[in-house]
Amino acid sequence: FTSLSLFSSAFSDELSHPSSILQYPSEAKKVVDEVDLHCTSWRLAAETNNLAPWSSIPAECADYVKDYVLGRGYVTDLERVSEEASVFDIDDGKDAWVFDIDETLLSNLPYYNDHGFGLELFDHSEFDKWVERGVAPAIAPSLKLYQRVIDLGYRVFLLTGRKESHRLVTVENLINAGFQNWDKLILRSPDEQHKMATLYKSEKRDEMVKEGYRIRGNSGDQWSDLLGSSMSQRSFKLANPMYYIP
Amino acid sequence: FTSLSLFSSAFSDELSHPSSILQYPSEAKKVVDEVDLHCTSWRLAAETNNLAPWSSIPAECADYVKDYVLGRGYVTDLERVSEEASVFDIDDGKDAWVFDIDETLLSNLPYYNDHGFGLELFDHSEFDKWVERGVAPAIAPSLKLYQRVIDLGYRVFLLTGRKESHRLVTVENLINAGFQNWDKLILRSPDEQHKMATLYKSEKRDEMVKEGYRIRGNSGDQWSDLLGSSMSQRSFKLANPMYYIP
Repeated sequence: FTSLSLFSSAFSDELSHPSSILQYPSEAKKVVDEVDLHCTSWRLAAETNNLAPWSSIPAECADYVKDYVLGRGYVTDLERVSEEASVFDIDDGKDAWVFDIDETLLSNLPYYNDHGFGLELFDHSEFDKWVERGVAPAIAPSLKLYQRVIDLGYRVFLLTGRKESHRLVTVENLINAGFQNWDKLILRSPDEQHKMATLYKSEKRDEMVKEGYRIRGNSGDQWSDLLGSSMSQRSFKLANPMYYIP
Repeated sequence: FTSLSLFSSAFSDELSHPSSILQYPSEAKKVVDEVDLHCTSWRLAAETNNLAPWSSIPAECADYVKDYVLGRGYVTDLERVSEEASVFDIDDGKDAWVFDIDETLLSNLPYYNDHGFGLELFDHSEFDKWVERGVAPAIAPSLKLYQRVIDLGYRVFLLTGRKESHRLVTVENLINAGFQNWDKLILRSPDEQHKMATLYKSEKRDEMVKEGYRIRGNSGDQWSDLLGSSMSQRSFKLANPMYYIP
């Protein structure tokens, strides 16, 4: 603790006093927008699953989230995850890929555009009405990945928290948005309605594994799509700063 | 597909043509810095574990990463994860918390400051020399969380990829940085040197669970600290845009 002791204590002080900036000889001072810094940090914590379940976005981040999802950030992030996911090769007919639907294959941005982008508390019956219109657009980079996965011969399982009674409208919406040739569309049966998503989705993946499938990829916008038992060889987390499903 | 068909196709076009900006009546155009957008997206993908193992940061993001780790972003993110982690109560003496060491309790920023913040390929022998100096400063928000966890009566396990031969210097470094009273410091034995970190750390967590501990929290800067078997009830991912350990 000789030459670095000054650095060490300066570093610690910085970490306890976030209002100042770490000073290095080479660093130019930078004006940082406070709200942007705060909301960027909130978004990283949300995306890395560090937050306790949250029910609506922070009010002070409403404009930040809106700018993100309507601007180039969200699109860029969606494209990147699709591109990263596409590097795999497959072996035989038992390789499977699991896709979530909402905010993974289909976008509900038109709905959230009318509901504060996650600022308003989730309204089941309003959202059901939107789902029942069956007009959610495809997330284009996901459609691209989906098509590649199908072309490579993967078995495709669509595993959604949507309820069984929305099967027909969901199929219609998916097909109109360009999705085809999946192996199985799994929706929540009435007795699964109150299971936590992580458990429900784990049980469904357990069944796939029991049937001999190797889950090679899993794409979802929620960590509850990806974590639990029978986890995929690789998981791909799509950005979603608008809502959290435990 | 009536009123929303235009939106739907516009949305899809947007996603395939990232050079334009999603247009909504309410959206003000915003000049976005290209490199910043690209590197912000890269960082999110890295932090959410969407990238295949990566060996060095993208060259074009060298300044971005440097500004992030030396500026207020990294500090803000470290503080947030520490604060989010501190909401737990405990039951009895079998509740445990697992901490990784490097970039979780101790910061190697002084080393990475001299080595391009992840731009240079990792140099084992150079890094060993740095570790052997034993002068890595504490990450202050982690020290705060650590202290709270100890005060609440958790058993604290330090689970690190550092090798057994670095035990003494690691203990000295930890104590000089303010960390005390852990229950067990687990380092890699020589025969564990070539295990993947995810497997090595899972096996060590398996042993804790076998001994009757409930792993309530796990703090680490790598997903290989957090994923695998015997996962913690809650995992806390600290930011680290500088290196990846599979």
